[in-house]
Amino acid sequence: MQNFDYMTPTRLIFGRDSIVKLPEVMQPLGKRVLLTYGGGSIKKIGLYDRVKELLKCFEITELSGIQPNPKYDPSVLNGVRLCKENDIDVILAVGGGSVLDCSKAIAAGAKYDGDPWDLISYKVKAQAALPIVDIITLAATGSEYDCGGVISRTETNDKIGYMDPLLFPVCSILDPVYTFTVSRKQTAAGIADAMNHTMEQYFAADTTLLNDGFCESMLKSLMENGRKCIENPEDYTARAEMMLACTYGCNGILSLGNSPSGWPCHGIEHALSAYYDITHGEGLAIITPRWMKHILSEKTIDRFVKYGTNVFGIDATLPKQEIAEKAIEATYQFFESIGIPMHLREVGIDDSRIDEMAHHIAVNEGLENAYAPLTEQDIKEILMASL
Amino acid sequence: MQNFDYMTPTRLIFGRDSIVKLPEVMQPLGKRVLLTYGGGSIKKIGLYDRVKELLKCFEITELSGIQPNPKYDPSVLNGVRLCKENDIDVILAVGGGSVLDCSKAIAAGAKYDGDPWDLISYKVKAQAALPIVDIITLAATGSEYDCGGVISRTETNDKIGYMDPLLFPVCSILDPVYTFTVSRKQTAAGIADAMNHTMEQYFAADTTLLNDGFCESMLKSLMENGRKCIENPEDYTARAEMMLACTYGCNGILSLGNSPSGWPCHGIEHALSAYYDITHGEGLAIITPRWMKHILSEKTIDRFVKYGTNVFGIDATLPKQEIAEKAIEATYQFFESIGIPMHLREVGIDDSRIDEMAHHIAVNEGLENAYAPLTEQDIKEILMASL
Repeated sequence: MQNFDYMTPTRLIFGRDSIVKLPEVMQPLGKRVLLTYGGGSIKKIGLYDRVKELLKCFEITELSGIQPNPKYDPSVLNGVRLCKENDIDVILAVGGGSVLDCSKAIAAGAKYDGDPWDLISYKVKAQAALPIVDIITLAATGSEYDCGGVISRTETNDKIGYMDPLLFPVCSILDPVYTFTVSRKQTAAGIADAMNHTMEQYFAADTTLLNDGFCESMLKSLMENGRKCIENPEDYTARAEMMLACTYGCNGILSLGNSPSGWPCHGIEHALSAYYDITHGEGLAIITPRWMKHILSEKTIDRFVKYGTNVFGIDATLPKQEIAEKAIEATYQFFESIGIPMHLREVGIDDSRIDEMAHHIAVNEGLENAYAPLTEQDIKEILMASL
Repeated sequence: MQNFDYMTPTRLIFGRDSIVKLPEVMQPLGKRVLLTYGGGSIKKIGLYDRVKELLKCFEITELSGIQPNPKYDPSVLNGVRLCKENDIDVILAVGGGSVLDCSKAIAAGAKYDGDPWDLISYKVKAQAALPIVDIITLAATGSEYDCGGVISRTETNDKIGYMDPLLFPVCSILDPVYTFTVSRKQTAAGIADAMNHTMEQYFAADTTLLNDGFCESMLKSLMENGRKCIENPEDYTARAEMMLACTYGCNGILSLGNSPSGWPCHGIEHALSAYYDITHGEGLAIITPRWMKHILSEKTIDRFVKYGTNVFGIDATLPKQEIAEKAIEATYQFFESIGIPMHLREVGIDDSRIDEMAHHIAVNEGLENAYAPLTEQDIKEILMASL
């Protein structure tokens, strides 16, 4: 078991109509609020009006139009400018993980005099950040319970995950009802995202019985409840359990004391969505089973056997190789069964830039140190197998 | 799934020699430290000297002699007095859960002008508390990752669990090596304590697949690693995993969204150790299987079936009643196998005060609202069956 230093100070207010506590949460953080959101779905579900009503005694500046795979330019830069111009005290992010990720970059940038990219690219360590509160409308990334974000910079095809303990939200408000209107496509992508977050921690060299059980429970819960959410989008209990499970995906609590895994599927997927702006969860679902197949070896087979028997209930008396292959097949089939396009071609990616992406990933993602080390050639083969 | 409002802001620094970060942790909290500890085992293992060496630039006042089932008088009262007399900035608790629980009461009392019992008995809500840092030497209570404590008041036979978000430790330093010298008896009591914390959350009317899996993983990990700790007290990996598992026992993370269970075994055990000052974990181990047997009914049987099949691997094709009975028997046998005395008589409790204790529990513990509601007569029967 490895040493670790862990903290997640975020308050979670969870459940039906938990938004009523918003004024109490915001009050000690200041009067001038930057309200960040995306394409306007929060207006359709009445959440925008509810927030404005609850915060009528606050001074609100708005940054809308934050896109999936949030962009440094214009979203982060505009947000930082608005914070400085309006002397903002606190950011309220209302939306999915992209809105929140973008808001984290803004929170750090607002307290920094130079180019915010210095912080995101770790050239400079942030010394302070604005406090962040969020209201989550999409169960997926776990950004509401971690201190990281992923920002894309279009002109360089960079998609960088950056983390700083300053960026933990002060409070995340989670009402499963807000996810009732999430489309089938985005629900499925959210399931795949959270499942992959779990797998990235489960597939490691040194794990504990405790963490393995936590991860297996995550995966089983996400599959069972995820499927229910797709069948009946207004199933409160299923939406609620999926929402809570997603929350645990990225803050490390599923793998305290495990050896680092390198998060290889994320390393590969970040290039896909940086180059092609595809839906992150779909990219992960496509890559995952191909990555699994590629790394299956004598050295990794016991992990796959545990995964297959404990998560999918595959007969433990079968030969190891057969269990592992069935587990990989079951992973693929689950993603396919919830309607995820399982080939890169289906999401608009052909083989024309695979060499370039494989090189970019090999240079930037450190996957030579992953649980199963990946060279540029390995990455290329995984991408080719995903076409 | 129930609404909840959850936060655990404590930083966990975990692993071999994690104590080296102590000065960095303490520095921002102030110069004047109240160092609290128990009977001196921290001196035997060299931890006391290490702390003094690391904190040689701090002004240290000491409160020693804090006992198991920590006492309001003298420990809490003396600690509060020392804090006020010495204008203490921060409390450093070094020891097991009792030292930390006592320190939490002191932290609140130090910032209150009246009788600290007002706070512990919830007559008055604390408005502030001193910050607390702890170094844990016993894996059991989970006090290092929650905001509660249990304080005993001898003259009234009260043993009160009190909680306040002000009392989360700022930081808990957890080095499994400090638990190498914990006796077989105390190791077993710690295992039983953490297992019971988990069961108190698992046996509830409304649970989630996710939480059930987390709890089952806790129980399996505690049994497997606990047994290893008893067989080989210096098995670092087993001590480490047991220590981490114990940490999750009491802060609620295993049951977010579950309906409240009432923590019935704790309600009953608190009276046992208030009246007889027995080891808390042993009391819990004795009560648990008798409580289980008592509440097994048509209404609760499915919980026992899930528990039996998932935690003990009992054949799921057997009749429900048989699975449930085997699960209860397996619980009893596990505790017995790690050397816990499984009868009240073995820990010095006869039937002479059972009526009085049952009445005290019925009046004070609210068990009429537990998962399986318990009347005074039920409590008496559970106690009688435990003799």
